[in-house]
Amino acid sequence: MYLKSIEWLGDRIRIIDQTLLPEKLVYKDLKSLDDVIEAIKSMRVRGAPLLGVMGALGLALIAVKLRDKRRGEIINELKVAGKKLKMARPTAVNLSWGVNEVLEAVNKSTDPIKAAIDTAVKIMNEDIEVNRKIADVGQEIINDGDIILTHCNTGSLATVSIGTALGIIIHAYKLGKKIHVYFTETRPLLQGSRLTAFELMKAGVPATLICDTAVGHVLQVKGINKIIVGADRILADGTTYNKIGTFQIAVLAKEMGIPFYVAAPTSTFDLKSTEKDVIIEERSHDEVKYIHGKLIAPKEIKVYNPAFDKTPGRYITAFITEKGVIYPPYEENIKKVLLRDK
Amino acid sequence: MYLKSIEWLGDRIRIIDQTLLPEKLVYKDLKSLDDVIEAIKSMRVRGAPLLGVMGALGLALIAVKLRDKRRGEIINELKVAGKKLKMARPTAVNLSWGVNEVLEAVNKSTDPIKAAIDTAVKIMNEDIEVNRKIADVGQEIINDGDIILTHCNTGSLATVSIGTALGIIIHAYKLGKKIHVYFTETRPLLQGSRLTAFELMKAGVPATLICDTAVGHVLQVKGINKIIVGADRILADGTTYNKIGTFQIAVLAKEMGIPFYVAAPTSTFDLKSTEKDVIIEERSHDEVKYIHGKLIAPKEIKVYNPAFDKTPGRYITAFITEKGVIYPPYEENIKKVLLRDK
Repeated sequence: MYLKSIEWLGDRIRIIDQTLLPEKLVYKDLKSLDDVIEAIKSMRVRGAPLLGVMGALGLALIAVKLRDKRRGEIINELKVAGKKLKMARPTAVNLSWGVNEVLEAVNKSTDPIKAAIDTAVKIMNEDIEVNRKIADVGQEIINDGDIILTHCNTGSLATVSIGTALGIIIHAYKLGKKIHVYFTETRPLLQGSRLTAFELMKAGVPATLICDTAVGHVLQVKGINKIIVGADRILADGTTYNKIGTFQIAVLAKEMGIPFYVAAPTSTFDLKSTEKDVIIEERSHDEVKYIHGKLIAPKEIKVYNPAFDKTPGRYITAFITEKGVIYPPYEENIKKVLLRDK
Repeated sequence: MYLKSIEWLGDRIRIIDQTLLPEKLVYKDLKSLDDVIEAIKSMRVRGAPLLGVMGALGLALIAVKLRDKRRGEIINELKVAGKKLKMARPTAVNLSWGVNEVLEAVNKSTDPIKAAIDTAVKIMNEDIEVNRKIADVGQEIINDGDIILTHCNTGSLATVSIGTALGIIIHAYKLGKKIHVYFTETRPLLQGSRLTAFELMKAGVPATLICDTAVGHVLQVKGINKIIVGADRILADGTTYNKIGTFQIAVLAKEMGIPFYVAAPTSTFDLKSTEKDVIIEERSHDEVKYIHGKLIAPKEIKVYNPAFDKTPGRYITAFITEKGVIYPPYEENIKKVLLRDK
């Protein structure tokens, strides 16, 4: 029923090469650390939750190649690989989280190879479970007749399966709620027009693609009454890092009195960092200057291409997590919900 | 020193085919009403002020073909042609304005052919003079060290020459003011990355291209202290219709306390219409789904592609016109400035 964007095959990681969607649904097997890092950097695999799984499976992939080594050597090699993996995309906290979870398990275990594989597979399976819960929690805020705006891709392709913000939307539709979705193309990498469009069509949800320039106008004239997006990192006070373009949608939502929700697993919350600790990744100028290999600007023009932006918590109506909906005041309620059942 | 985007050659209109920029600077001669309408619809020629000139020259082109006809016939044929021209792009008031100016002159004259040509050429030449004045008036609000954001293309290519918002920016730079310009790519038709980039590079102005999604973030982190855009139609209360994406930039500007200016000739003001009279043009879905002929979304996906949006006057710091800067209250001051010297 849902696409599965990643699989563990014992000695390989099978992914959907998302750079080729929606034209071609091509699977690709990753067999080495270099393969994994290349796939992350070039965004064959993207989406915060999926990057967490990818970080963990990346270490499992290294681990199976170290069968002949001693425990100390294995742990050292995994640490070095973990560092390289984290550097592939520095803003998304999930990638580091996935790597760290595996390293922690490895450190504690007498059989580090088994620990790496078991932990990575557990993270992968848990992602599906967590997303199922987010979809369950989130569908309750969606009513018959809602007209919803979303940004970027936060569906099955951004996770192992189901998704976060888009998972909620598709789940609500499958439960019979009559909704219409407007979604942005999400320049530069067009995750909206390529991936979200693909998933919404596959699920049969009535949906309309718009340019990123049309958000304000669509909020004025199309009766949008809810906005739901994902997140790449959420700080203790609710400050949210997400795909470039999120902040301006949140500002418009506030100005026009439209609820603005962020859907994310609790693994996206980073209670230790402050704004100063977060590096906003800048990506290649060619992502802006070329579309499908075709130059759309003067070759020598200077470009600024940030991948994420920062939305202060005051623009966010609530966070939807697998542990429930978190409302302001965030300084208080985020900790309360996250530390529940720990 | 400045590009000239349109020329009257007596029996032809020579334009720059803007759909081919920045890759190729190609001139194209328009020889019939169909040529003119095709060039307007397919946006070989675009930009509010240039459309006004194009409307007027379009009628001059018809007029020279009517040398054998009687006065009554000539006037009738020009009226029919004028209606067709206006329909080519319904939102921009300048196109109608240019057509109406010629028709009015023709009606009053005993030599309607001469009247059509003289009026059209006068409108073309006046556009340059008006833009020179807008640049003079506007450069006064620009200071050394300013970091300015602009949207779409409002330069020589949007007018006969010099431009409006971009004309001010380039003029201020040529006067020696040290500025830096951030400009949006302006999806769907990329007038920013294609045309504004071309003009800013040609003028040597330090400038950086960003995606439309990056506006909010750039306002947060790049120290932008002024925003200047153009306009396609301005109502008596300051309500401004301009390129899709303008409204959301204006909302961000207000939220972040950054002055937001609209630069336009007084011919862009429409004191007779109300919001109900203005049709927001919707353009082809293919403008969103294809870039340079390459499909970037599922072929069957539904698209909404409005060309303009509406910015209420309360988001606008001031209008910069050839008759001076107009500050709020607009209900009062727009009429005052426009009716000056009449």
